[in-house]
Amino acid sequence: MIPHPNLADILAAAGRIAPYAYRTPVLTCAALDARLGARIFLKCENFQKVGAFKFRGAANAVFSLSNDAAARGVATHSSGNHAQALALAARLRGIPAFIVMPDNAPAVKKAAVAGYGGRITFCESTLKAREATLERVVQETGAEIVHPYNDDRVIAGQGTAALELLEDVPGLDAMLVPVGGGGLLSGTAIAATSLRPGIRIIAAEPEGADDAFRSFQAGRIIPSTAPRTIADGLLTSLGDRTFPVIRERVERIVTVSETAIIAAMKFVWERAKLIIEPSSAVPVAALWEKKIDLGGLRVGIILSGGNVDLDRLPWTA
Amino acid sequence: MIPHPNLADILAAAGRIAPYAYRTPVLTCAALDARLGARIFLKCENFQKVGAFKFRGAANAVFSLSNDAAARGVATHSSGNHAQALALAARLRGIPAFIVMPDNAPAVKKAAVAGYGGRITFCESTLKAREATLERVVQETGAEIVHPYNDDRVIAGQGTAALELLEDVPGLDAMLVPVGGGGLLSGTAIAATSLRPGIRIIAAEPEGADDAFRSFQAGRIIPSTAPRTIADGLLTSLGDRTFPVIRERVERIVTVSETAIIAAMKFVWERAKLIIEPSSAVPVAALWEKKIDLGGLRVGIILSGGNVDLDRLPWTA
Repeated sequence: MIPHPNLADILAAAGRIAPYAYRTPVLTCAALDARLGARIFLKCENFQKVGAFKFRGAANAVFSLSNDAAARGVATHSSGNHAQALALAARLRGIPAFIVMPDNAPAVKKAAVAGYGGRITFCESTLKAREATLERVVQETGAEIVHPYNDDRVIAGQGTAALELLEDVPGLDAMLVPVGGGGLLSGTAIAATSLRPGIRIIAAEPEGADDAFRSFQAGRIIPSTAPRTIADGLLTSLGDRTFPVIRERVERIVTVSETAIIAAMKFVWERAKLIIEPSSAVPVAALWEKKIDLGGLRVGIILSGGNVDLDRLPWTA
Repeated sequence: MIPHPNLADILAAAGRIAPYAYRTPVLTCAALDARLGARIFLKCENFQKVGAFKFRGAANAVFSLSNDAAARGVATHSSGNHAQALALAARLRGIPAFIVMPDNAPAVKKAAVAGYGGRITFCESTLKAREATLERVVQETGAEIVHPYNDDRVIAGQGTAALELLEDVPGLDAMLVPVGGGGLLSGTAIAATSLRPGIRIIAAEPEGADDAFRSFQAGRIIPSTAPRTIADGLLTSLGDRTFPVIRERVERIVTVSETAIIAAMKFVWERAKLIIEPSSAVPVAALWEKKIDLGGLRVGIILSGGNVDLDRLPWTA
């Protein structure tokens, strides 16, 4: 078995991406503390490049490549934050990024990827078509595939957010992290439990996309089927590089309702004055609807991103 | 003539309010820099207590009072951020705050003031009724009036935001500040030009409420009449304590269109991921629509507040 990324990999990633990624601030909000009954430290990855933590993993992967490999470019299939992140990281290294996107992806996402210089290949929106198209692109270009989360370089990159949070906030008792494919969660768990043994790592997931919860209970990966949630960053299934880390280092996965996700998101907008996307509100929602009791503890929450369509807000729909 | 507040007053205010006010972060945003053509440093008073810089001035006034004066409480007429700020500052000192509000003020504002423990007296919505009601309240209680801006303690308090900004960001060339009654602008101008002679202080005002612009041109206070702007924090007229400071220390007042205010506000939400109220977008709008050229300079912008009704956004109306 290939060993999973460790603290040294995450520290190396931190050094590698430091010239490119923002060191995002950690903010607090008294109203949020009062509402959630804990001392909350918000790691603001919504301020990260491309508006999401995804830039960390993508940048680590891109800047890990040898010059020869890099010259052939990187590739992925994604219509979300990872596609933008990979496109920007590639542009910063001066190499091509080949992005396979379904032709029905929102125009704003196509424009964002193109805006960062990504070379888009459109395909049908099935997973099969995406994978086949990606394979073809890679055969034609020799580009290196960078998976959105099931990639050790990406996992190590995502772990750098927790590294900074732990440096900035002493004495954290727990971290609350959203889980989709598990890249952020596994990277965070490795960083946090290595640097601070005994820290509690708790993941939060939408009830309508609870495959990680069910996988955790079952002890094997149960793929996501027909997930339904407003937290569109958390639709994916766990991977074989993320799940073992999660089983080993995560205390618990809790699920939250759509109502709580929207309410928590709106509260963070109103009181913390931060634009966060629904996926970021998922860990907040875990405390919001008391799915876990962290009363009085010092809790780090990684706000995963802030990319929302301001013309279509969930509470005005 | 009573001398205007000076740097020593602002430094004293900073020490006085330090236990109560947040030291708000200064954030940057590459997309904003690119759009505005300058290096922008955002002083995030939207993160301040009660969601606005107003807490600084109110807290300085409240904590400047002798114990005897304080025991009788403080009073003001306001339906905006100042009312909430004064109520919270008073509660932190353990004294009453008597707030005169028009009976047609939005329910959410009444609730906010009451939520901070303010004792509300309702009156008709005319300025005459407000002033008469405030006078009566003061006669009955002996409370000290704290004007929203035409008060040297308030001006000194508002100047503390600029103090922090200058401490955190070396080498600022200019500051861009919204102007309503001029409390923030005069405090900022005193702090900045004292600490950094030669720094350019530029004020921005909505075209539909351009009394400060016209006053600045005329050399005398021209009261605001029937102002119309979405920037509802900037409807007030200059006062005799703020105007002389502004004349002396402000380089220029520029006016901006409603379209630019809304566009700049939305851009800050989308790209900087910060919830700001329309008044905060006014200085951003000055660069947005090129009302002033600060090309390539290092510019501090005080984001005055973040109190907006998330159910009624200007771009979805």
